[in-house]
Amino acid sequence: MKHYKIAVLAGDGIGPEITQEALKVLKVIEERNDVTFELMPALFGACAYFETGDAFPQATIDICDQADAILKGPIGLSHEESKKIPVDKQPERGALLPMRRRYNTYANFRPVSLPKSLAHFSPLKPEIIGEGIDLIMVRELVGGLYFGNKERGVNDKGLRYVRETLEYDEEQIRRIMHEAFKLASKRRKLLHNIHKSNVLMSSVLWNEVMEEVAKDYPDVEVVNYLVDAAATALCLKPTQFDVMVMENMFGDILSDQGGGVLGSLGLMPSACIGPEKAYYEPSHGSAPDIAGKNIANPYSMIGSVAMMLENSFDMAAEAKNVWAAMQGVFADGYSTADLSKPGSGVTMISTVEFGDKVVEKL
Amino acid sequence: MKHYKIAVLAGDGIGPEITQEALKVLKVIEERNDVTFELMPALFGACAYFETGDAFPQATIDICDQADAILKGPIGLSHEESKKIPVDKQPERGALLPMRRRYNTYANFRPVSLPKSLAHFSPLKPEIIGEGIDLIMVRELVGGLYFGNKERGVNDKGLRYVRETLEYDEEQIRRIMHEAFKLASKRRKLLHNIHKSNVLMSSVLWNEVMEEVAKDYPDVEVVNYLVDAAATALCLKPTQFDVMVMENMFGDILSDQGGGVLGSLGLMPSACIGPEKAYYEPSHGSAPDIAGKNIANPYSMIGSVAMMLENSFDMAAEAKNVWAAMQGVFADGYSTADLSKPGSGVTMISTVEFGDKVVEKL
Ligand SMILES: CC(C)[C@H](C(=O)O)[C@@H](O)C(=O)O
Ligand SMILES: CC(C)[C@H](C(=O)O)[C@@H](O)C(=O)O
Repeated sequence: MKHYKIAVLAGDGIGPEITQEALKVLKVIEERNDVTFELMPALFGACAYFETGDAFPQATIDICDQADAILKGPIGLSHEESKKIPVDKQPERGALLPMRRRYNTYANFRPVSLPKSLAHFSPLKPEIIGEGIDLIMVRELVGGLYFGNKERGVNDKGLRYVRETLEYDEEQIRRIMHEAFKLASKRRKLLHNIHKSNVLMSSVLWNEVMEEVAKDYPDVEVVNYLVDAAATALCLKPTQFDVMVMENMFGDILSDQGGGVLGSLGLMPSACIGPEKAYYEPSHGSAPDIAGKNIANPYSMIGSVAMMLENSFDMAAEAKNVWAAMQGVFADGYSTADLSKPGSGVTMISTVEFGDKVVEKL
Repeated sequence: MKHYKIAVLAGDGIGPEITQEALKVLKVIEERNDVTFELMPALFGACAYFETGDAFPQATIDICDQADAILKGPIGLSHEESKKIPVDKQPERGALLPMRRRYNTYANFRPVSLPKSLAHFSPLKPEIIGEGIDLIMVRELVGGLYFGNKERGVNDKGLRYVRETLEYDEEQIRRIMHEAFKLASKRRKLLHNIHKSNVLMSSVLWNEVMEEVAKDYPDVEVVNYLVDAAATALCLKPTQFDVMVMENMFGDILSDQGGGVLGSLGLMPSACIGPEKAYYEPSHGSAPDIAGKNIANPYSMIGSVAMMLENSFDMAAEAKNVWAAMQGVFADGYSTADLSKPGSGVTMISTVEFGDKVVEKL
């Protein structure tokens, strides 16, 4: 009997609701496999700050340190609410970035995937979706502007200024490139390298290292795209992409564009993998405006569980079942509010109903 | 009789072809107005580098310095070709950025506009285009990562690294905010402020200054969007936006996404305005793969002429005529290859034919 400890950080806003549904799924997996999951709930994000004065309190750190994997809900407050908290205590700077740094989760995998049969979810025309979108963005997650030096001051003209640094060394680039090339080797053997080498010197280094690493994967074709051109192409011809690799900030923007292309950020799970620890989280925010209404889409959170099963627990077959169950619910014509536009023929169901239906299918 | 000097920098790739069509339009305007345009052609970009060893040669600088306005085609080489030129001599670093810096063209206006009647051009479903997209991105163009310090070296672990800085001071932010608020005042009185304040300290300052400037424009409603959320929203509900303001790199990415939303970067003209000089350019690259084939879309270049007429020569009525003429060509069912998908019912015409038809309509 295998035994895994999972830190469960439900987070803010819609976090607790969608986490609840993800845990239902985990329970089913547990019941029919030779495995037990020890769930260790902990406060993380704005909820933790309000309760303890710290968005990533020591008690949570201890739990995460012990865990075999971390399941993390979205965190954050509305623009107005977050102004009430000191900048460095805010959930992103006070919890999320410290988590990424602590576990050095440099490899962020963000699938952007929509089968042809679900083309109606997308704002894009069916002919653009074609046989379906099935790409994965590989985002460097612990470097770049996110973790650079940040200096705020008043310059000699008496003006307030901020100076922050974007920094990469070859080792940081090399390891994420290996992740991307390895993934591409297992898939369509096509890697889109996203960069901005006509402006950023960090992209010049990025591309140099990419070309060095490429030698180890002679069967993978590399296509280079400027980040701006990639943003165009992701709208015009998303099906051309299979694996895309990019630095941190570009990954933030393009992956959210990916959610737009699919029709909802609610379709965006992710895995954040470090040398010793991984955590799993939706790519989206905590959507405070719809929190507590039982209308959020738990797909991203259940999908994050699927990624955890595959990556942290070596349960690829069960991960596949989870994806299939969710696709099955969609195939039956159901979805949550975000994807049920009037006239689309989709029957709207609640967060809890979506979770229940996934469990039924499993 | 008014007399204006226009520096004409046709640029690389498709640049000369689309510039040719733009000049045809200028000629018509000249013929029927009390104005003469003195065209001063000059080398700029890769073509200049190959001819003179310098992408922005002194002769071109002199011409631009004398000009009342600069009309600039796209520049740049393919990824492979550009490797043959030293990094700092490449057209972007050697010509475009020096131009922006020299004339301090801090305010970049990029309309992203598609009337309902042209919804078929877009990859988005007609119901997403609704009554049409009509937004303008206001991009800060001479600050941020583009003009920061760039340091490349080997660190104490013996690893190659690059460190570059993203810097803004309050004055840089204030002047672009005034541009954005002024524009919003003249339009729907709605300004979307794009930032990433949950990670970037420069965005924290950006938002502070935005709120200070907002006091001068009490009738303008401000909506704050994280840049990633904006990338999602631009796919899901582009019609919500009217004026958007953002820093340099965000503007680069989101405006190209805007081109994707419209259906082609060929629909993206722009104006780059400084305190004393303005230049006008398509937002897209030089598309070396289709250069010389008479298939490029000159809309972006002719549109840049329209923006020049309005901004630099105070000829708003003629600018309107130019826009209307181009819309008229589309309305007649014609367009260039980029927008003529098989089965769309659009008749494909060449670059030259498009220019001719615009001239006919004028
Ligand atoms: C919440 C925020 C700091 C975070 C990021 O920018 O990385 C989020 O947008 C994401 O993409 O995971
Ligand atoms: C060519 C490049 C340097 C430029 C930029 O990044 O600003 C272009 O993409 C643009 O958007 O005008």
